Amino acid sequence: MVKKSFPLSRVYQLLEPGPVVMVSTCRDGKPNIMTMSWHMMIDFMSPLVGCVISEENYSFKIVKQTGECVINIPTVELIQTVVDVGNTTGSKIDKFATFHLTPKKALCIDVPLIEECYANLECKVIDMKIAAQYNIFILQVLKAWKTISKKRQRTIHHAGKGNFIIDGKMIKLPSKKK
Amino acid sequence: MVKKSFPLSRVYQLLEPGPVVMVSTCRDGKPNIMTMSWHMMIDFMSPLVGCVISEENYSFKIVKQTGECVINIPTVELIQTVVDVGNTTGSKIDKFATFHLTPKKALCIDVPLIEECYANLECKVIDMKIAAQYNIFILQVLKAWKTISKKRQRTIHHAGKGNFIIDGKMIKLPSKKK
Repeated sequence: MVKKSFPLSRVYQLLEPGPVVMVSTCRDGKPNIMTMSWHMMIDFMSPLVGCVISEENYSFKIVKQTGECVINIPTVELIQTVVDVGNTTGSKIDKFATFHLTPKKALCIDVPLIEECYANLECKVIDMKIAAQYNIFILQVLKAWKTISKKRQRTIHHAGKGNFIIDGKMIKLPSKKK
Repeated sequence: MVKKSFPLSRVYQLLEPGPVVMVSTCRDGKPNIMTMSWHMMIDFMSPLVGCVISEENYSFKIVKQTGECVINIPTVELIQTVVDVGNTTGSKIDKFATFHLTPKKALCIDVPLIEECYANLECKVIDMKIAAQYNIFILQVLKAWKTISKKRQRTIHHAGKGNFIIDGKMIKLPSKKK
């Protein structure tokens, strides 16, 4: 996928619709991936994102220790991979290898992007205090990438128990809001 | 709309897909509404929700003072109202009256539900500490309501600048996850 740098001030347009994402991390040279649906924008510029990573997730400790991760946004073509990544643990398998995902070097952090995802957000943790109580990490997006394509990229939204809603029609209405 | 009580343990299925919501509040008997897209689930049971309400929003102070709000989930039929509510301020108009929305008495809190929305979550704020730094309110859902209907309810997702993605196809895949 040919990607180009995407303006930080527009990152909210990628995350605000609520897509399922895959979070990549790396510790001691070992990359890992988890599937995540609990995230939200917190600020536009520089973009801040809040996300919930449960203590039960193998990625929890990695993010706590390294303070870095990539939010990778998959499209519907990757739906089975999204489920497979969510149903397995990085304590037992190498998810990049097992699910044939391609790690790509990031620009700002030591965590690989998932090449097959249409957009990637390189993030550093700027606040871990809230994680102690609510498992909420506050991430600052340092760098964003988005695939160059004329084809509309359809993301997926989890509605519980393996039910996924695929992006449908897009409507534009006059709005004063960002 | 005929609604019935919806199990608290399944509230995540309503919010996790990332729908645009309308947040109703009430102070001194005056109800208000704002449109919101920045929210996420934090815990399943009892359900906790994190949401960002900017200090610039008229609703910010009301939520801080009263500690209560309703998250109302609209479907695509209400898309114009969602934009209109988002483009106006409760400091100048009564949004229920102006946009012909029907306030309905809640069971657990003194804030009206928006009758026209297909689902409503009665919430109380359980943590305002994080709001001081990030405008993040931690809400506990006390009671949930969902319309009884065989028709699929299509929610909307904001992708910035008045672009809305409407729910499309639904796919079910075998998953071990909630």
